[in-house]
Amino acid sequence: MRFAMLPKAWPAVVSALESAGHEQASLEEAEFVVFNGDGPDFPDLPAGVKYVQTATAGVDGLREAGLLSDRVRWANAAGLYSDSVAEGTLGLMLGAAHMYKLVTARASWDVAKKIQYESQFLYEDKTVMIVGAGGIGLRLMELLEPFGCEVIAVNKSGRAVPGARETYPMEQVRSEPELWGRADFVVLLAPLTEETRGLVDADVLGHMKQTALLINAGRGGLVNTDDLVDALREGVIAGAGLDVMEPEPLPDGHPLWGLENCLITPHTTNTIPIMKKRLGALAVRNAELFAAGERMETEFDPEAGYYAYSRRRCHEEAI
Amino acid sequence: MRFAMLPKAWPAVVSALESAGHEQASLEEAEFVVFNGDGPDFPDLPAGVKYVQTATAGVDGLREAGLLSDRVRWANAAGLYSDSVAEGTLGLMLGAAHMYKLVTARASWDVAKKIQYESQFLYEDKTVMIVGAGGIGLRLMELLEPFGCEVIAVNKSGRAVPGARETYPMEQVRSEPELWGRADFVVLLAPLTEETRGLVDADVLGHMKQTALLINAGRGGLVNTDDLVDALREGVIAGAGLDVMEPEPLPDGHPLWGLENCLITPHTTNTIPIMKKRLGALAVRNAELFAAGERMETEFDPEAGYYAYSRRRCHEEAI
Repeated sequence: MRFAMLPKAWPAVVSALESAGHEQASLEEAEFVVFNGDGPDFPDLPAGVKYVQTATAGVDGLREAGLLSDRVRWANAAGLYSDSVAEGTLGLMLGAAHMYKLVTARASWDVAKKIQYESQFLYEDKTVMIVGAGGIGLRLMELLEPFGCEVIAVNKSGRAVPGARETYPMEQVRSEPELWGRADFVVLLAPLTEETRGLVDADVLGHMKQTALLINAGRGGLVNTDDLVDALREGVIAGAGLDVMEPEPLPDGHPLWGLENCLITPHTTNTIPIMKKRLGALAVRNAELFAAGERMETEFDPEAGYYAYSRRRCHEEAI
Repeated sequence: MRFAMLPKAWPAVVSALESAGHEQASLEEAEFVVFNGDGPDFPDLPAGVKYVQTATAGVDGLREAGLLSDRVRWANAAGLYSDSVAEGTLGLMLGAAHMYKLVTARASWDVAKKIQYESQFLYEDKTVMIVGAGGIGLRLMELLEPFGCEVIAVNKSGRAVPGARETYPMEQVRSEPELWGRADFVVLLAPLTEETRGLVDADVLGHMKQTALLINAGRGGLVNTDDLVDALREGVIAGAGLDVMEPEPLPDGHPLWGLENCLITPHTTNTIPIMKKRLGALAVRNAELFAAGERMETEFDPEAGYYAYSRRRCHEEAI
């Protein structure tokens, strides 16, 4: 098939598609588009385009801009970044638990006493609540396994996640906020949808343990940022580790930068070099499935706002 | 038996020993001493004291102060902190690889690009060289297992460490410094002895990969600090994560604090709360073995400077 990669063609992806017999073309001639930009970069799709392959798992930017037209089919990059996001999430968990931000910000040995008595260790019988327990959550559970953590999973349906002690549907953690109080670590990996926007607010934070650590590697909009700043300032919870936040980019001087109990990475658990390395192979698999008249591996329903089909049930269950 | 705990009796330890039938006494009347201080706190031992149980695994402070008298027997706290030190080590590995110090020090989103292109992920076929691969190293290997890292182990004897791809004796990495160039992560967990002091110097650093990350959770004296500062400044290696360093406490204003590629924790992978929780049970087991005329679980030879006997071969092999 003929494809266009926009707004910027990545050689590794183009060459993977060409090796599989596809042909790079102009947008006007393309049968499918590989899109690796943000909402404002999205083109008007000519009639010849049958489907769009995105370079990211999250497509909320396109959805919010009203660009998820149902005139074409859609596939995202779900599953491609499970390894890197799960690793980045574990890093933030350990970094928040061991208070790296505090010690780095102070640059003085006098923080040792605080660290000694307030840092937490994952291996010490911790309960981790994974909200949006899909493919990345399962990978995170593999990384947590040698620490012996208990996992409480939350997904859209409440269908039991293998390896989790309990699984709750998203609806239930909204209606029974005391459930948040069971966790030592609350890890957000959910996509941003109408149901999940602002999920973690002052009320939910108030139900968490005072020693709890909130980790967000899902989407910034899952958390009410002002409420989180207040909770971290006032010791409602012990700390946070954020790879995503609202707004992004987080402006210089934003209160989150100054909080010693809030470790931040700038949306980099899923990096461009990793995308470049991995997207080509997925794009080839999806093109092959499309050409065969099948559902693509990471095809999603643009109206429902979540993955309609997935090889791995867990992706479907995440949200 | 009668015991004294010095310089500060920890209730959890005293009560564990009392529950096992031992009796807290003055130093003059004690048959064994549980010592939880630094060299300068160490008392003159009355003739009635038969052995000393230390609260730490490392005893180099006592050795250097000439206090490891062979008039009594000695047991340390090896193995007690494998969980916490291994976890702290993994945290530093991830924190150094994902550049937490840089992003925290800058407090600005503009570091995202650097992080994107220079951060490293453990899951991406990394080779980890563990120098001093004893009990903590084995625990670290468990934590690394789901990342799929290859491990090169270094211990005193060169006896193969289970799970490591290769094992080298300490002597060989001294005589063949090019071996250091095989690792993406060099993790130091060795005790400080005459053989290991200053092990990592400018020459060794120069043989490492330019992308290598050096992690030290063993003893500060294993590394020549000035050489490390130069190597980090000049990009000879990519970064470091240090729980131990020389000198300790690291003075305010020391160059290591200012290096954006050097993540520091203030010797807190093994914390006092963890010691308090765990030392009691070990002290009871050792007292029982001593009373039965056997070698204690963590008994070490004060002259050789390493564990003479150990239930777990790995402790013996570490050094």
